[in-house]
Amino acid sequence: MAEIKELGEFGLIRHLTDKLHYTQKSTEKGVGDDAAVLNFHNKRTLVTTDLLLEGIHFNLEYVPLKHLGYKAAIVNFSDICAMNATPTQIVVSLGISKRFSVENIEELYKGIRLACERYSVDLVGGDTCSSMTGLTISITCIGEAKKDEIVYRNGAKENDLICCTGNLGSAFLGLQLLERERIVMQANPEGTPAFEGKEYLLERQLKPEARLDIVKKLRETGIHPTAMMDISDGLSSELLHICTQSNCGCAIYEDKIPIDYQAAVLAEEMNLNIVTCALNGGEDYELLFTCSLSDYEKLIPLEDVYMIGHITKPEYGCNLIGRNGEEIALKAQGWQAF
Amino acid sequence: MAEIKELGEFGLIRHLTDKLHYTQKSTEKGVGDDAAVLNFHNKRTLVTTDLLLEGIHFNLEYVPLKHLGYKAAIVNFSDICAMNATPTQIVVSLGISKRFSVENIEELYKGIRLACERYSVDLVGGDTCSSMTGLTISITCIGEAKKDEIVYRNGAKENDLICCTGNLGSAFLGLQLLERERIVMQANPEGTPAFEGKEYLLERQLKPEARLDIVKKLRETGIHPTAMMDISDGLSSELLHICTQSNCGCAIYEDKIPIDYQAAVLAEEMNLNIVTCALNGGEDYELLFTCSLSDYEKLIPLEDVYMIGHITKPEYGCNLIGRNGEEIALKAQGWQAF
Repeated sequence: MAEIKELGEFGLIRHLTDKLHYTQKSTEKGVGDDAAVLNFHNKRTLVTTDLLLEGIHFNLEYVPLKHLGYKAAIVNFSDICAMNATPTQIVVSLGISKRFSVENIEELYKGIRLACERYSVDLVGGDTCSSMTGLTISITCIGEAKKDEIVYRNGAKENDLICCTGNLGSAFLGLQLLERERIVMQANPEGTPAFEGKEYLLERQLKPEARLDIVKKLRETGIHPTAMMDISDGLSSELLHICTQSNCGCAIYEDKIPIDYQAAVLAEEMNLNIVTCALNGGEDYELLFTCSLSDYEKLIPLEDVYMIGHITKPEYGCNLIGRNGEEIALKAQGWQAF
Repeated sequence: MAEIKELGEFGLIRHLTDKLHYTQKSTEKGVGDDAAVLNFHNKRTLVTTDLLLEGIHFNLEYVPLKHLGYKAAIVNFSDICAMNATPTQIVVSLGISKRFSVENIEELYKGIRLACERYSVDLVGGDTCSSMTGLTISITCIGEAKKDEIVYRNGAKENDLICCTGNLGSAFLGLQLLERERIVMQANPEGTPAFEGKEYLLERQLKPEARLDIVKKLRETGIHPTAMMDISDGLSSELLHICTQSNCGCAIYEDKIPIDYQAAVLAEEMNLNIVTCALNGGEDYELLFTCSLSDYEKLIPLEDVYMIGHITKPEYGCNLIGRNGEEIALKAQGWQAF
């Protein structure tokens, strides 16, 4: 019997969805990207789903339920944004164990509803049931886009610019901070967690945002990315996905990777390499995209968008260029679901 | 703090989704029916989702994984059929604990894929992750229909005929049989389970079907139901939903309720009232619908469709007319999720 961890999450999905045949005319893109694409009519309908399990994806010791609900919705919106599309509806399924009260579930829903309001997404259905153990949250998000607006992972071309938004590693460092303070508090329940000056990192971990603002801005500016993903497992892992699916290599520059000041300070304090955090720490939900060199001038004025490298021939491989010019092969060390 | 079981599943959903505001023009119908209805274009897109948890919805001691996968897909197809629509795509999320091997998950997927093939539904995406405890299956199904084909729960009118398909109570009795034999086998592991002559009941429990055939037949025959649901929680419970949402009462006749011969025999053997099983046993996934009296002639030749009663004024209430003409108020004693 094969153990699942040998295959890993992506291996398992590939294995299970191998040789799937699509029979519906409306299925334009099935398994293999951030979301499926359905061609019901002229516009395209997108579908994505995420499952969050207590003890695996979240720890209620330090995640308030309202934040958890907010994040559970955002993670799905982000998958739709990663296709250069607009999230429009969600359905929510909850498995709830006896230790949760109605008030608890209301808090969770408040977070989900707040996210929906902020992003103009409608909560249109769901399923709730009891669970033997812990909390299970499954959200499916529907989105829409015109056919030629949709961006897949497989369109990156040699010489394309590689861009990312916001800053990277902050959500991971927020998690390290929460974990550190949880252990301190266990030893000394009378103390106060040392969060001062690090609130931004907590927010990035507990209350991430989907970059729908960037999707809109790219559209306004007339930039059409050639490939795009959201950064949920870490920059390295996502870049490798784009390069594998686009059959190309890449070079990104260490000194171009956007890093927040608070993140750098905490990494120093905790003796972590901040670049490693940015490359491999997940859950930033920033966008990673490639676009034609000819879009360079249009990219310059865009706030919160950073050019971090370029696409190369496949034989070059995927490399990080260090501050002293040294080349280091990128590895997918991102968060592993198994 | 309020306990969730005080509200029940429907109470909790109503509570949580109270005063939801929809902002997307494409949201035609949100929470409150078998599926949401999205108006992206001319045709309508439907979305429904179901969450299945080990120890709550299934017991792997007697449910083979392939059957479980098949049923998990069918349950969703059935929700789309219950809107008089056609299921077209699903996304599948799995939470998998360490005790499952790749071969186990393959078996589960074989069942899901078999259901997809049989119903021409495409599996277009999903999410898999590890779970601390047991197996979690979340499936979201997309479907389509023309606007005027869609049937909601709220359209039943006085004097409408009440119809159901197939037969009722068989899936519940299949479950009782499995449970009985499981206990017998525990006491005597050398024995053989006494399933002979009762295979149909096992099949109804382990491998239900969605009545897409009936949806197609109704369309061919030109019958447009005024209200429709699938029978997942029991006939009583579903009829009460239709009557509440349509603001009407109903009368159904005990001797018209379709019951399978094997089901009747087993009920006798187990000292269960077969009519109670048919009214309150869930998981039959047959269709319950109402239609205009003027469709009577068209209904007669339809195979596997039974007229079991009619819609009344709301003040009459919801009643079962017994074999001797006695009236018994219908109660929702169906399967309770909490």
